[in-house]
Amino acid sequence: MTHHSRLYSAYVDVPVKNFDDSVRFYGELLGRPATIDPDEPEYASYGDPTPTTGIDLYVQAIGEDHPRIHLDIETDDVEAEVARLVALGATEVARIHTWVVMRDPVGTVFCVIRVQDAAQFDAKAKTWD
Amino acid sequence: MTHHSRLYSAYVDVPVKNFDDSVRFYGELLGRPATIDPDEPEYASYGDPTPTTGIDLYVQAIGEDHPRIHLDIETDDVEAEVARLVALGATEVARIHTWVVMRDPVGTVFCVIRVQDAAQFDAKAKTWD
Repeated sequence: MTHHSRLYSAYVDVPVKNFDDSVRFYGELLGRPATIDPDEPEYASYGDPTPTTGIDLYVQAIGEDHPRIHLDIETDDVEAEVARLVALGATEVARIHTWVVMRDPVGTVFCVIRVQDAAQFDAKAKTWD
Repeated sequence: MTHHSRLYSAYVDVPVKNFDDSVRFYGELLGRPATIDPDEPEYASYGDPTPTTGIDLYVQAIGEDHPRIHLDIETDDVEAEVARLVALGATEVARIHTWVVMRDPVGTVFCVIRVQDAAQFDAKAKTWD
């Protein structure tokens, strides 16, 4: 079975109490305001901070006190991609809505998510046989 | 004084003892081998994992046991950019060679570095007056 994946985005994960300040900080750092969908108020999106590129940057409020940055891998087959990465030494941490939270072999968190940007995905995703 | 900056790269920072495994893991995850400059063996570069984009991904061996991901901001004026970010609430952690290690207001590490990719920088850097 063929499926596809590519690096998609970077998240700055911060405690809920720090969310507003962090959203402001990164908006200033990047020189572009965040947009927040009222239906998903825990996400602040800066879109693509390096125009014409394929990676997006977010600030996300999380239920933990340990700040970090994590990466997302988008894929047209979440189960196949999770299985591929488990075979490489990653571990599954949790399933949330449509995505899977994982840890790399050292313990750093990343997520496997469904295709977010079809045009970029079609142009740049890697093919796995 | 006008200077410029833009988001440049993402680093997966791992303990030295985990470096080789992590380099292999991310090479497999991305489907592209890392290149390691013998003069800087603590860095494994995957180049740009999403072709035509302006962000590069590395694995870096660090002298700490706490894995994390950090972002780099490249700039044509390190001092001016550091001052700008300190004014936004960041703090300076250390000066290493030509770059400055900083923490964002929540404590997440990032670095301010000199221009690494002049063509991308000229095309995409944000101007700060």
